[in-house]
Amino acid sequence: MNPIDELVGEFARLPGIGKKTALRLTYHLLKRPQEDIHRLARALTRLADRIHTCTECGNLTEDDPCVYCTSPRRDRRVICVVEEASDIGAIERTGTYGGLYHVLGGRLSPLEGVGPDELNVARLLDRMRNGSDVGEVIVATNPSVEGEATALYLQRLIQPTGARVTRLARGLPVGGDLEYADGVTIAEALAGRREIR
Amino acid sequence: MNPIDELVGEFARLPGIGKKTALRLTYHLLKRPQEDIHRLARALTRLADRIHTCTECGNLTEDDPCVYCTSPRRDRRVICVVEEASDIGAIERTGTYGGLYHVLGGRLSPLEGVGPDELNVARLLDRMRNGSDVGEVIVATNPSVEGEATALYLQRLIQPTGARVTRLARGLPVGGDLEYADGVTIAEALAGRREIR
Repeated sequence: MNPIDELVGEFARLPGIGKKTALRLTYHLLKRPQEDIHRLARALTRLADRIHTCTECGNLTEDDPCVYCTSPRRDRRVICVVEEASDIGAIERTGTYGGLYHVLGGRLSPLEGVGPDELNVARLLDRMRNGSDVGEVIVATNPSVEGEATALYLQRLIQPTGARVTRLARGLPVGGDLEYADGVTIAEALAGRREIR
Repeated sequence: MNPIDELVGEFARLPGIGKKTALRLTYHLLKRPQEDIHRLARALTRLADRIHTCTECGNLTEDDPCVYCTSPRRDRRVICVVEEASDIGAIERTGTYGGLYHVLGGRLSPLEGVGPDELNVARLLDRMRNGSDVGEVIVATNPSVEGEATALYLQRLIQPTGARVTRLARGLPVGGDLEYADGVTIAEALAGRREIR
């Protein structure tokens, strides 16, 4: 296969990139200096060769254990459980969380054949057992049906250890508009209403 | 910089790919087998190393001159002039053109600082002079203001050689809807109306 068709094919394998976008990207690169293309290729190679899963928490990292697991400044009494490693960035950007993380690698989804065994759950329980002083697990799975089911499953699993299990609040997104919010969200916002002090 | 941020940065340099999409693509790759990432990197490297500009027509090609310029089966009396090498694919897919090509590498655009010197025009005139028997130049620039201006410019340049200069027909796109066609297109379709026989 010629190099153009080959790269178009590889680009088109990426999510959200169809044949036309793949063509556009390839011809864009062909107009750039050769070095630009090599730099993208090198970034991919580095990613493939250097990024591993943290054996402690499941985060994607160059160093194992990862920067969160080894930091002396993180609060080791709280673990925030997320579905994907990419969710960690979203939480870190808030600048309001200083505890540890644990990456499940997905959420329970019987329809897609994802059961408890497919998730990084056993390691989470290990982490809570081995002489740890984890007092709270914040379940930060997505606010979807599967995310909720996963949260409930974890709650039942973790409860016996004595740790508190919490989940992120549901409610109106900041900057959102009541008029355009869906009914379920408004119902959650009502149920979770807080006193103004 | 860590490999994740580095690749996100490289992806985000591509057209139509913002920071969020770049993140999504990177984390998608991290979930794929390492070999998938290496394959994409190799495709990029091959593209950078093997694709060159055809010195004859300006097409992007592995072999110089390219497959169209060297084919004994193409009609050497017709040259179709396109803005970009990627346009050749669009015309080839119709399966109705059997002549040669010439890639300008853009279109006249004073606003963007693209004048005649920035386009691959001198080579086109060379090709028509050197004992060639080119009898027609089909100007297939885009149906935009700049594309039209480029077509007119080429027409004036080529006319002295005695070759016919034609351009692609304007009109209603097949499968389109008269109701939704813009006025300029309808006017062109009226002006270019053809007798039904």
